[in-house]
Amino acid sequence: MKKPGENREFRKLPTAAARRQAVEKLTRAGLANIGAFTLSESAAATRNCENMIGAVQIPIGIAGPLPVVGAGGQITRYYLPLATTEGALVASVNRGCKAISVSGGAVAAAYRAGVSRGPVFRTEGLEANNRLFDYVDSHLEHFRKITLSTSGHLTLRDLDTKSTGRYRFVRFMFDSRDAMGMNMATIATDLIVRDIEAATGARCLSLSGNFCTDKKPAWQNFLNNRGYKVWAESLLNPDALRILRTTPEGIFETWLSKCMVGSAMAGSMGFNAQFANVLAALFLSTGQDLAHIAECAVGMTTMEVSGENLYVSVYLPDLMVGTVGGGTGLATQQEALSILGLVGGRDGENGLKLAEVMGAAVLAGEISLLASLSEGSLARAHQTLARGGKQIRQ
Amino acid sequence: MKKPGENREFRKLPTAAARRQAVEKLTRAGLANIGAFTLSESAAATRNCENMIGAVQIPIGIAGPLPVVGAGGQITRYYLPLATTEGALVASVNRGCKAISVSGGAVAAAYRAGVSRGPVFRTEGLEANNRLFDYVDSHLEHFRKITLSTSGHLTLRDLDTKSTGRYRFVRFMFDSRDAMGMNMATIATDLIVRDIEAATGARCLSLSGNFCTDKKPAWQNFLNNRGYKVWAESLLNPDALRILRTTPEGIFETWLSKCMVGSAMAGSMGFNAQFANVLAALFLSTGQDLAHIAECAVGMTTMEVSGENLYVSVYLPDLMVGTVGGGTGLATQQEALSILGLVGGRDGENGLKLAEVMGAAVLAGEISLLASLSEGSLARAHQTLARGGKQIRQ
Amino acid sequence: MKKPGENREFRKLPTAAARRQAVEKLTRAGLANIGAFTLSESAAATRNCENMIGAVQIPIGIAGPLPVVGAGGQITRYYLPLATTEGALVASVNRGCKAISVSGGAVAAAYRAGVSRGPVFRTEGLEANNRLFDYVDSHLEHFRKITLSTSGHLTLRDLDTKSTGRYRFVRFMFDSRDAMGMNMATIATDLIVRDIEAATGARCLSLSGNFCTDKKPAWQNFLNNRGYKVWAESLLNPDALRILRTTPEGIFETWLSKCMVGSAMAGSMGFNAQFANVLAALFLSTGQDLAHIAECAVGMTTMEVSGENLYVSVYLPDLMVGTVGGGTGLATQQEALSILGLVGGRDGENGLKLAEVMGAAVLAGEISLLASLSEGSLARAHQTLARGGKQIRQ
Amino acid sequence: MKKPGENREFRKLPTAAARRQAVEKLTRAGLANIGAFTLSESAAATRNCENMIGAVQIPIGIAGPLPVVGAGGQITRYYLPLATTEGALVASVNRGCKAISVSGGAVAAAYRAGVSRGPVFRTEGLEANNRLFDYVDSHLEHFRKITLSTSGHLTLRDLDTKSTGRYRFVRFMFDSRDAMGMNMATIATDLIVRDIEAATGARCLSLSGNFCTDKKPAWQNFLNNRGYKVWAESLLNPDALRILRTTPEGIFETWLSKCMVGSAMAGSMGFNAQFANVLAALFLSTGQDLAHIAECAVGMTTMEVSGENLYVSVYLPDLMVGTVGGGTGLATQQEALSILGLVGGRDGENGLKLAEVMGAAVLAGEISLLASLSEGSLARAHQTLARGGKQIRQ
Repeated sequence: MKKPGENREFRKLPTAAARRQAVEKLTRAGLANIGAFTLSESAAATRNCENMIGAVQIPIGIAGPLPVVGAGGQITRYYLPLATTEGALVASVNRGCKAISVSGGAVAAAYRAGVSRGPVFRTEGLEANNRLFDYVDSHLEHFRKITLSTSGHLTLRDLDTKSTGRYRFVRFMFDSRDAMGMNMATIATDLIVRDIEAATGARCLSLSGNFCTDKKPAWQNFLNNRGYKVWAESLLNPDALRILRTTPEGIFETWLSKCMVGSAMAGSMGFNAQFANVLAALFLSTGQDLAHIAECAVGMTTMEVSGENLYVSVYLPDLMVGTVGGGTGLATQQEALSILGLVGGRDGENGLKLAEVMGAAVLAGEISLLASLSEGSLARAHQTLARGGKQIRQ
Repeated sequence: MKKPGENREFRKLPTAAARRQAVEKLTRAGLANIGAFTLSESAAATRNCENMIGAVQIPIGIAGPLPVVGAGGQITRYYLPLATTEGALVASVNRGCKAISVSGGAVAAAYRAGVSRGPVFRTEGLEANNRLFDYVDSHLEHFRKITLSTSGHLTLRDLDTKSTGRYRFVRFMFDSRDAMGMNMATIATDLIVRDIEAATGARCLSLSGNFCTDKKPAWQNFLNNRGYKVWAESLLNPDALRILRTTPEGIFETWLSKCMVGSAMAGSMGFNAQFANVLAALFLSTGQDLAHIAECAVGMTTMEVSGENLYVSVYLPDLMVGTVGGGTGLATQQEALSILGLVGGRDGENGLKLAEVMGAAVLAGEISLLASLSEGSLARAHQTLARGGKQIRQ
Repeated sequence: MKKPGENREFRKLPTAAARRQAVEKLTRAGLANIGAFTLSESAAATRNCENMIGAVQIPIGIAGPLPVVGAGGQITRYYLPLATTEGALVASVNRGCKAISVSGGAVAAAYRAGVSRGPVFRTEGLEANNRLFDYVDSHLEHFRKITLSTSGHLTLRDLDTKSTGRYRFVRFMFDSRDAMGMNMATIATDLIVRDIEAATGARCLSLSGNFCTDKKPAWQNFLNNRGYKVWAESLLNPDALRILRTTPEGIFETWLSKCMVGSAMAGSMGFNAQFANVLAALFLSTGQDLAHIAECAVGMTTMEVSGENLYVSVYLPDLMVGTVGGGTGLATQQEALSILGLVGGRDGENGLKLAEVMGAAVLAGEISLLASLSEGSLARAHQTLARGGKQIRQ
Repeated sequence: MKKPGENREFRKLPTAAARRQAVEKLTRAGLANIGAFTLSESAAATRNCENMIGAVQIPIGIAGPLPVVGAGGQITRYYLPLATTEGALVASVNRGCKAISVSGGAVAAAYRAGVSRGPVFRTEGLEANNRLFDYVDSHLEHFRKITLSTSGHLTLRDLDTKSTGRYRFVRFMFDSRDAMGMNMATIATDLIVRDIEAATGARCLSLSGNFCTDKKPAWQNFLNNRGYKVWAESLLNPDALRILRTTPEGIFETWLSKCMVGSAMAGSMGFNAQFANVLAALFLSTGQDLAHIAECAVGMTTMEVSGENLYVSVYLPDLMVGTVGGGTGLATQQEALSILGLVGGRDGENGLKLAEVMGAAVLAGEISLLASLSEGSLARAHQTLARGGKQIRQ
């Protein structure tokens, strides 16, 4: 017998509307806005979200253009769709874009480190663990074939392995082209793991042994990378510094005391100002997995005073993004990607471009916030914007 | 003269529709779905998002009920609105809720550590730095009055200060009741900083010196807490373990090798399985600042085999959430909060409850995922769900 | 029946000579030099080292004088006894002392954070854990009395406590005056733990729960300090920079790229150049516990260009030293302490002074090495010195 | 004119005796014991220690035998010379050796990761940094030749490189056979760096960019290893557990709460009990560089209950030791190495063996201390031993 309030087995209800009604009845909440979505229910409910009752809406603001200089020297101007509820963020990034624009753009580069999955095995001890090492270490080509058998879009690039006691961890790195690829990597790793178990007698205790490391901040990802590693830089000229109302020496001093000394004094992996803000806003609009912010917000901003100019750079060691799969196929997310001109797969090119644009956008955010902080204007900006003021003082 | 592609000064355009049109023209993207929002544009565009062009939609699934045992022993059953694009997440949390339900519920407790802001000052050296210490250390009451002058909803609770060389960092901890409170804390800190500068001659290099630490993973927050610290636990009985298709010993072995040994081997601050997934889904639906996932996903899951039962707990040292301010006032977010019965302010009680519910939901996610991993079923579950399969095997 | 090669029960043999003979017989090693010690065998064999067979000799070099400016502005000149086998270290520290000397000395300050012991308790769960918190949190005075009952030289200053799941960790901070105090703290904590167990029913799983954190690098100690925290600084003038063959800008650039950016890129807790070298040499000569190098070598060097001068500082968040107890009473160690004028206890004053001198010596080491690195001379110096060359180019 | 107390230019004095006399005069300290050394002054003063005035003596105790099972299954029994001033340490390690002995010995294995040096370069920006990458990445063979030109005993094995902004860090990994090799590696890196500067125009800001990472705790070394990585394990039988006065479940519970949960709660890199104690004692007696304790004390102990037995293991990811060079050539240190049968070079074999023995000794220390803690006997043991008691209760 069911007690009141117990699981009504929402998944037996046929539609989001039916489930929404059930929730409204159970909780007396009115869910009209959650029900007012335009996403394809059949797609979302099967691929993205079980027990779907509707959708949450997050406002998108537009910033830019942000001129990004690619490998060949050609400049592409991007408009950035930033989904956020944090007042002042869009304005801040926009100001950074302007400063970068008047300085000739941001140079950005992304390198595909690959999506990783890191299972943990148990053996009887050192001797068996060495045998497991020998098998793993000598069967990369074999594992590549297994990987290909699971998906034509996935390539096993490399593996690394470490052991302690009876445990052995293996980190498989995959190339998933334009997809972020976590699910594909998991499926392939599952098959590889079965092969290893059969061949060596080792037992896999967990398909993910936190050695990946997925969705947690980890030095593993900072030092050995994951997803894309991305760099972006700009040499800000005096015009840019005027827009930012700061001086090369002033912003440098703020950066050094905050991003370097302050982060060290706080035991932080994030030697930056606001990577998380800009990444979260772009992850949201473009359909990325928001939980990856937990690992992707680490990284470093550097500065150098160059006469009357200021060199600024960002380094993102771990950026897990894609242009296909996950939430990227949903209607609003597709539109956001189309603002960037990066809809769908293009043999890995779109994923790389998205990573570069995100790096450049993060650079814009760093420039603007560090300039604000150097001028003591942060609090005033928040006061004005977050409380509904109409003026953005840039 | 404007060059083509330069900043069209979107913020001079009067409406989201006008800006959207401008973006469509500039990028040739069709933005019909982004434009199909029901949020109040006037509120969102002024408080949450400059240059607003519309909204992104993220599907919400419902999980639960999740019975949470409060301080007095009374049980409240919560339905969890989870906004996500990651197939299998809602089903996974739902299964965890069921396991907790048949075991009598989750005990949860939250403690308000407070929102922090940590500016950095520069002095001439050790002697001046000591004088700065003396002033800061002896003026807590004075700073409390300054804080109250900025908002009747904000109380300065405490401060901590550390120095290195010419730098001094001060970490102010505020009670912001039901609000997450970052903006309030920044405004108050700004005034306090002006007072300190005037009284001591020290110069504030940055209102945020990364000593807060805001939106970056940091041991500062893990060890000394931020926002709420939250615990949740459940003693899973054999019925629950049957639902989870695992044994106490099996899931314990997975937890130990992954969350403890594996996290240590990867240099991770996240001694858990998937805090980030559950937090991101609840942050999204209830209007929290998603960038805080960068710091809030750290924390620890522990297990202990108790005969035929399994004790499971989670500890979140740093949870930055609120029920008023930020994105919580938006229409869909208000509805999600109303599903939880936690709309608006209630003298700090709603914030605390939200923190407890999130802790219990995170517990459900840990239980379910670690059970899946211990059964080797993760990959299969993803294969079925993420590719649009209709069956969720629970 | 004993098998050959089994434990010969060295401790039953009456003297070091007898044990040495036994070892010589078992291993065919000649131990004449190990036997040629002048330490008091009766003292060392009972207090410092069971199964004593003799002593190892480590060469001591002398550096200095190092002028240290104390709180009242008075200058004390210290000669530093550095025990090391690393060629070039004494010469390097000596050069740093000279640079500091011509710049008017080093300002140093030490603050007693206290020696800590951090046991771990197990309870039945959250509710019992909260009761344990209540007891611990409200009985500081009671624990102080227990502490006093174990030693008149030990005072319990404070405690901090954190919990996860069924576990609770408590960090007790003691003032042990001129002693490093780890043993005293352990004995007092043992009694306190028994009191807590009796009063609350909680069970102590380990008198040291690694929450101390003793002899391992830990953010706990970096952020919340242990032993002494020490600062030292000097404003190097052009004469000093000439001695160091560098420029303010050159050495600053080396420091920033190495101690800040490099340490961050390597995930290091040591934002410095060679704290470990100088500390190990002084720990050895003055009878400190060498294992503490594992935790004491963390900390930070900072620099700032001030016109033609260079500001340099060091911050040691965790320095575990003393002038009584442990190895400080041995004959050669007493002599090394007498070179510093810091033999025996003086109501905590000698411990503080030793901490300050170590801070200033560490500063000298940083200045010299970073200058060497900025001039590319490190390798050449090592080449000359470590291979027995007669010339030290300073 | 010299002011009193200024640098007397000790290095101009011809002998340790003359310098000692000068120090005695300057400080009024009597240095008879420091002067009573048997080390070869001419060797020590030129190779190990400038401005030598004598030597410090540290008592050595003997523990063992410790049976170590090598790769082929053969057992070697080692007696451990432990130089320490910490009462109870030798007794503790000795008890661990006994427990291991009655369980059939410790299996140990060491792998040469190599000594590393990690310089930092500065370029003009991303483009130049990529060119630098291309050069470094494609010239491993060339760098190997340069390395060989500096020493026939040194081989460049591999390199890794990472960049941020204008900086590029390169980590060169060398095989230095039986030597710890830091000086050799520095000399070779210096030459390689000159080659890179000449070929690319990049400027080396520091021959050591803390990317090595030398003598600081760093995740770089934990995750990517340095020196030797070493494992040791033993399956303790009921006899051993009786000697240790504990049970498999009891000691497991202590280990889990302390080494895993406690270390995580303290933000420690040391997931162990007392690696630092045992390593410091063996580093001291065998002439290793004590400052390396700062990096070598990290690592992990694991346990598993196996019926009535207990599996215990240690993993040392970073052990910087050698049997030639540095302090290993000094008289007492040579004798300590001869106790181990590991004097001098043997084509890398002696270094490997020393690393294995150290791993096994560390295992003995872990077993004994964790057993003591599980029995609540730590404080009592310290009370008896450290205060000069005659009984060691084992």
